[in-house]
Amino acid sequence: MVKLGLIGAGRIGRLHAENVVREIPEAKLLSVADAFMNEEIRKWALELGVCKVSDKAQDIFNDPNINAVLICSPSTTHEEYIIEAARCGKHIFCEKPIGSDVARIEEALRVVDDNRVKLQVGFVRRFDHNHKKVHKAVEEGKIGELYLVRITSRDPQPPSIEYVKTSGGLFFDMTIHDFDMARYLSGSDVDEVFAHASTLVDPEIAALGDFDTAVVTLRFKNGALGVIDNCRKAVYGYDQRTEAHGSKGCVLVENDRPNTSLLLTAEGGLSEKFLWFFVERYKNAFVEEIQAFVHAIEKNSNPPVDGLDGLKAVLIAQAADRSAREGRPIKVPAL
Amino acid sequence: MVKLGLIGAGRIGRLHAENVVREIPEAKLLSVADAFMNEEIRKWALELGVCKVSDKAQDIFNDPNINAVLICSPSTTHEEYIIEAARCGKHIFCEKPIGSDVARIEEALRVVDDNRVKLQVGFVRRFDHNHKKVHKAVEEGKIGELYLVRITSRDPQPPSIEYVKTSGGLFFDMTIHDFDMARYLSGSDVDEVFAHASTLVDPEIAALGDFDTAVVTLRFKNGALGVIDNCRKAVYGYDQRTEAHGSKGCVLVENDRPNTSLLLTAEGGLSEKFLWFFVERYKNAFVEEIQAFVHAIEKNSNPPVDGLDGLKAVLIAQAADRSAREGRPIKVPAL
Amino acid sequence: MVKLGLIGAGRIGRLHAENVVREIPEAKLLSVADAFMNEEIRKWALELGVCKVSDKAQDIFNDPNINAVLICSPSTTHEEYIIEAARCGKHIFCEKPIGSDVARIEEALRVVDDNRVKLQVGFVRRFDHNHKKVHKAVEEGKIGELYLVRITSRDPQPPSIEYVKTSGGLFFDMTIHDFDMARYLSGSDVDEVFAHASTLVDPEIAALGDFDTAVVTLRFKNGALGVIDNCRKAVYGYDQRTEAHGSKGCVLVENDRPNTSLLLTAEGGLSEKFLWFFVERYKNAFVEEIQAFVHAIEKNSNPPVDGLDGLKAVLIAQAADRSAREGRPIKVPAL
Amino acid sequence: MVKLGLIGAGRIGRLHAENVVREIPEAKLLSVADAFMNEEIRKWALELGVCKVSDKAQDIFNDPNINAVLICSPSTTHEEYIIEAARCGKHIFCEKPIGSDVARIEEALRVVDDNRVKLQVGFVRRFDHNHKKVHKAVEEGKIGELYLVRITSRDPQPPSIEYVKTSGGLFFDMTIHDFDMARYLSGSDVDEVFAHASTLVDPEIAALGDFDTAVVTLRFKNGALGVIDNCRKAVYGYDQRTEAHGSKGCVLVENDRPNTSLLLTAEGGLSEKFLWFFVERYKNAFVEEIQAFVHAIEKNSNPPVDGLDGLKAVLIAQAADRSAREGRPIKVPAL
Repeated sequence: MVKLGLIGAGRIGRLHAENVVREIPEAKLLSVADAFMNEEIRKWALELGVCKVSDKAQDIFNDPNINAVLICSPSTTHEEYIIEAARCGKHIFCEKPIGSDVARIEEALRVVDDNRVKLQVGFVRRFDHNHKKVHKAVEEGKIGELYLVRITSRDPQPPSIEYVKTSGGLFFDMTIHDFDMARYLSGSDVDEVFAHASTLVDPEIAALGDFDTAVVTLRFKNGALGVIDNCRKAVYGYDQRTEAHGSKGCVLVENDRPNTSLLLTAEGGLSEKFLWFFVERYKNAFVEEIQAFVHAIEKNSNPPVDGLDGLKAVLIAQAADRSAREGRPIKVPAL
Repeated sequence: MVKLGLIGAGRIGRLHAENVVREIPEAKLLSVADAFMNEEIRKWALELGVCKVSDKAQDIFNDPNINAVLICSPSTTHEEYIIEAARCGKHIFCEKPIGSDVARIEEALRVVDDNRVKLQVGFVRRFDHNHKKVHKAVEEGKIGELYLVRITSRDPQPPSIEYVKTSGGLFFDMTIHDFDMARYLSGSDVDEVFAHASTLVDPEIAALGDFDTAVVTLRFKNGALGVIDNCRKAVYGYDQRTEAHGSKGCVLVENDRPNTSLLLTAEGGLSEKFLWFFVERYKNAFVEEIQAFVHAIEKNSNPPVDGLDGLKAVLIAQAADRSAREGRPIKVPAL
Repeated sequence: MVKLGLIGAGRIGRLHAENVVREIPEAKLLSVADAFMNEEIRKWALELGVCKVSDKAQDIFNDPNINAVLICSPSTTHEEYIIEAARCGKHIFCEKPIGSDVARIEEALRVVDDNRVKLQVGFVRRFDHNHKKVHKAVEEGKIGELYLVRITSRDPQPPSIEYVKTSGGLFFDMTIHDFDMARYLSGSDVDEVFAHASTLVDPEIAALGDFDTAVVTLRFKNGALGVIDNCRKAVYGYDQRTEAHGSKGCVLVENDRPNTSLLLTAEGGLSEKFLWFFVERYKNAFVEEIQAFVHAIEKNSNPPVDGLDGLKAVLIAQAADRSAREGRPIKVPAL
Repeated sequence: MVKLGLIGAGRIGRLHAENVVREIPEAKLLSVADAFMNEEIRKWALELGVCKVSDKAQDIFNDPNINAVLICSPSTTHEEYIIEAARCGKHIFCEKPIGSDVARIEEALRVVDDNRVKLQVGFVRRFDHNHKKVHKAVEEGKIGELYLVRITSRDPQPPSIEYVKTSGGLFFDMTIHDFDMARYLSGSDVDEVFAHASTLVDPEIAALGDFDTAVVTLRFKNGALGVIDNCRKAVYGYDQRTEAHGSKGCVLVENDRPNTSLLLTAEGGLSEKFLWFFVERYKNAFVEEIQAFVHAIEKNSNPPVDGLDGLKAVLIAQAADRSAREGRPIKVPAL
């Protein structure tokens, strides 16, 4: 039985906690910590059957009954909490991004290694039924030698400006999922990126020096090319399409809809909007990623997305951000 | 070179004529006859490069330069014109239905046989790129042993009441195409039919004692079952779907659209309406059926849809009409 | 809190039980009864947190802590258990069919009424995300006046011959779902049915005097027509399509697939098979139907599918079976 | 009546000639010139009803009966023939690319202007039923303010190495269509391009210093971004998808298939391969573009794709080629 502590009870933290309680009988959530602990969180935790709450992550690290933590606190705390957790011998599931400071991430990975704990990073899309199929088709050689990877990733609506301010920017907050997806689908590291980025959706985002629309091209180490298109706004719902093209064919996945209905009228054929956002689209994937983490602990195997994957996505994001700002392709540092 | 005479310059007659002139270099249209010959038809024929026009079909039958006729006159004239044409040694393409009086049709087929001319009946849907594929999949055993044939056939809008009055009724005018399609797809004759029919679209059709909506079930001689659903109104365009289900799988075809566009907005995904009616949907099939007729003459081979096919569809239509009126399944007479 | 007892721990009973425990916090499963109680069921119940087990349904009816029962025992026991449960004041969820003897079902419904307990029948497809959409489009007038309802329902593979023997026959075991669906989609009762049925899949089914393939046409009380096609075998997976056509348009739903992938190769485009069977396809619907039952009890409202719905589906099934055997359309008795 | 002369009777020239003869009654093909005139071309022309043949383009320019020319000779001759034709007062349809030397193209456009003849460039895809729909949706504001244009363009198989040698390279031979498409869909000129290009399909293409796979990102003058992905090989058929995303939605078009069939078996659902190549996919578009040219002459209106469009596509191709070779984004010169 894997005994978990949750650090950070925001939207994503609660989602993981509820999945653990309802869907993962092999794990038990014992404790919740949140720096801004309040009555509402306490009530939520109680209803979930979690009695221990605290406003200090350290209480979880120090709890001998806990053997694994879910780090869902703000991104700026990730490296620190990974280091603390690892030193206390806890296995770690950490939400993306793993951090923003490369040296600090590298330090955290060393501590994780030294303490022989497991670290899984929350690239939830790897657990999606659609993207998994593209990955598998590439891996099994169904499309032959890989030529191209194509990723479309558009949010239904931009986040609040408050969120944008502390998000780390488009490439670190949003595209980082796609950078990991590009590595996952291609089975290759990224050698070079170029980004054309703009602010077309919201001038307030421009005022912050951030972008809301981007096209990023990638050159993979294995020679294949890749392209990601991002936009912070897609009024028709969360747009999450992936595609891999190669010498023997092409595999692609479309978006999910709440139902398969088609209403045929004098206006044409009307189908449903796509599932609205990541909570709906990646509902099952969120369960599967925590299951995978729990199984890795139980079976003492490697988590399917590890700290190095987390670091590599950050390095690509940094290169993309620099490319967009300097107007030139940027090499991604090899590790 | 096949030299053709057209009898009946209504909509379908003109369509065939124009296809011959523009698309079938192996054939030449020499003459047009229409009982209601007028200035407009004369002008149309002239523009098409046809100099000979007449208000008598007999002028075409007597023309020694003509070796084949396209009978596109009203249904009530079909048997008579087939007999006349056959006696004059002309090959015959006859629009559907081949006739309405079974004894008279049988006589016509005998005359055709005796005079060794070819007779093709205008079941144009056999030449459609979609339905052909279903037929071929069944024929090639792709779906194994046949269990079920399913045909949906709905017109975008009911014809004028004037047309309905002389149409022969829903089963002879509209479903007759589906009865032929059922035989074509199943590769089997029909043993028994049952029809539930109603008048839901237009009370004026009910006043004529005709139907505008029907579901017909078929039991094929080979044991498989079939179902046809018909409606005189489908505001979203001509609905022409076929399907065959068997022991190894199922093959089905969807409708054609003018383009593949999908407009994704806050309302959902909007695709195009289906192609509006038979002129649009069976555009190429109309060309192919006359090509097939011309080739059968040139190569002295059997036309792909012959007089017996025409007669059999009429027999099924009669059984369906009787079934709908008497409220019981009716056996289709074997030939 | 709704306290439940399960009667019958076969496949469907266990499925409901597990859904109650995992997905429906407002309900609690207290007890399991199965006439063939054994070690395996005991173990399963224990793991689910249910301590009370018995080989007598009566133990559940007598249990004062239980206020509602899930009847998942063989069909032949349904009327009797409904009567017993109602007399003991328990609310009742009963799997389909509600019974096979009409007089006995009517008696059961009277006892239910007299004892003012709620009775919901397990027509799970009403809770499917796809069919619900068709129902709603009809109800909201999106397709105008209803002309036609079309239902395709094919199982991936025939059940065991042992199962077929006691199933009650194709119309009572399989089509009964579609009869309820026809009423649900059309919003109308059925006036008359005609069935063409065959045994094409398995001669052993024929030896039992049962059918495995059928086309049933329906005339609804509101004038619209309907058609159901059934087959016990569809190697490409569970085929569950519904469609409603009317004066303003047509609404239809396609099958669900495990993912949206399309593999494009030199052979063509390959998409996934449909979800394999009802457990996969109606996974969420099974949860929703029990939720609906629990909510009806909590809010003292009418269940969405009641005893009369159960009875009406049986009456249509009887008419269809008689139609197939006597070769003529049969009126469905009005209640 | 527009009287045409054809210069260059290769594949594309013959295709245009046959379309003129069969599909465009308002035009007449009087003469064919080909520098490598031979018996085969003579025979082909004769069968088409064209009596005049020559091995000198000049014979066509000098023919007073001819008022318009179709330039389908090798790309290297385009500017010269445009200039000659314009000086002789002939209207000009010129296959893409309009040329390769910018100064020479500019000179040609001046001569065209000075002689007040019409010049249309063969960007046939603007006449495709699918891409037209995307263009129209953008133009009519259906997707609001434009954010992104996405173009996928992959050939079924690489051309012969002989062809590649004289093709001018990937960007001038293949992507040039997409550069025009990008301008057509966005309604904007291109400000800057960046290209990641590779040779993944065929090492012989690499040996020539050319590319066979590329991802090109574009920054439009109106602020929107664009991306084109190209590959010389797609074994599943010609892949021609376009998409435009904006503030109110997204419009996209899928590929065409020869029929809509879906074969459902135990392996999954098999749909047809896409139409094989440009001859099949752009069949109707090839007719429509020459019709548009003929109509522009008849109505003395501007052709829908003119010389400036031809020049602008060349300028973008040059910038893309330079970008791929120098590894940096390149500004497209404004005109």
